[in-house]
Amino acid sequence: MPGVTFWYEFASTYSYPAAMRIEELAGANGIELQWRPILLGTIFRDNGLPLDSPFNWQPAKGENMWRDLARICARDGLPMQRPDPFPQASLRAARVATVGLEAGWTPEFSRRLYLAEFGAGAAIHEAPVLGGILSDMGLKPDEILETANSEPVKSRLRAHTEAAKSAGVYGAPSVTTEDGELFWGNDRLEAAFDWANGIGRIAG
Amino acid sequence: MPGVTFWYEFASTYSYPAAMRIEELAGANGIELQWRPILLGTIFRDNGLPLDSPFNWQPAKGENMWRDLARICARDGLPMQRPDPFPQASLRAARVATVGLEAGWTPEFSRRLYLAEFGAGAAIHEAPVLGGILSDMGLKPDEILETANSEPVKSRLRAHTEAAKSAGVYGAPSVTTEDGELFWGNDRLEAAFDWANGIGRIAG
Repeated sequence: MPGVTFWYEFASTYSYPAAMRIEELAGANGIELQWRPILLGTIFRDNGLPLDSPFNWQPAKGENMWRDLARICARDGLPMQRPDPFPQASLRAARVATVGLEAGWTPEFSRRLYLAEFGAGAAIHEAPVLGGILSDMGLKPDEILETANSEPVKSRLRAHTEAAKSAGVYGAPSVTTEDGELFWGNDRLEAAFDWANGIGRIAG
Repeated sequence: MPGVTFWYEFASTYSYPAAMRIEELAGANGIELQWRPILLGTIFRDNGLPLDSPFNWQPAKGENMWRDLARICARDGLPMQRPDPFPQASLRAARVATVGLEAGWTPEFSRRLYLAEFGAGAAIHEAPVLGGILSDMGLKPDEILETANSEPVKSRLRAHTEAAKSAGVYGAPSVTTEDGELFWGNDRLEAAFDWANGIGRIAG
């Protein structure tokens, strides 16, 4: 089964609909997914861009992004509520999601977090929000939040962000294939899975 | 028949595949198209952004854009050659295209120009390139190039760019519907036409 890596950022708006649909789409295409929460702010900084969301420092683009996201959520049957402030501080959520990679609860946690953030406007840096989600999933919030704050998890998240950057990732969501092809955006999931299955490939 | 406006910029990469497919797609959806070449640099400047292409001042994004464009062109059966320099100086081409709006040759001229620029790497500010296209279309190059340089045409192009900005346009290609909905990108043509036909609408 061909594998792809799904790079996403919890503060990223288009990562929300992508995260909500990618597992079903991967299944339908016979693709094995590797979930990789990353910190896009680090990549923006390394690329010489403002740390703030491009949708804030480009207001006309930002305004239309919210409208476009609303259209996409309506199409996909997803709730939408704009979090305030935007972007949300995503460091703690990314660390928690990184904790779950071995045990395999990261995809479900990520979907629930996105639903809380962009579906219900929750503040995702707050321990009760994160803990509530973990608790609803039958996991141990206190233990996991403590582990999320440990040096091995912090450095693993940094390493994943570095790996994303090395793969050419400059925005989220992104998908990379085993042969190194990079696809940016919720609009490119289908093309990425086709590529992984040998469809639509070009030289290069 | 519902109408939409197609805002495009001759230096814009994704405007190329959009321009090549929009007329057939509009026909299939029963949509009346209004072609509007604009100067995106003016809008970037007014929005406080660098005049240069975002794909140049964001190199990681730019590199992946060229790859993505190559994939799209392969999919759509379009030739692709990267023009040098990029972006091309598009002012004269936009003025020529504006001349053709009344007579109705703007769509065909625009497609031929995009094919020359992104399909064959031609320099679109050069009078022989523009004149060659007009001549191949059975039009009068000298007369049209002179008209393109006249005050009424210059000011009409400025007015169209202002109208784009007022409609919220911040990038190209973009489509706006009669009720003012804005769709950005080659990826949104289908959604824009659906909207114009009353499909997928959300409250405003």
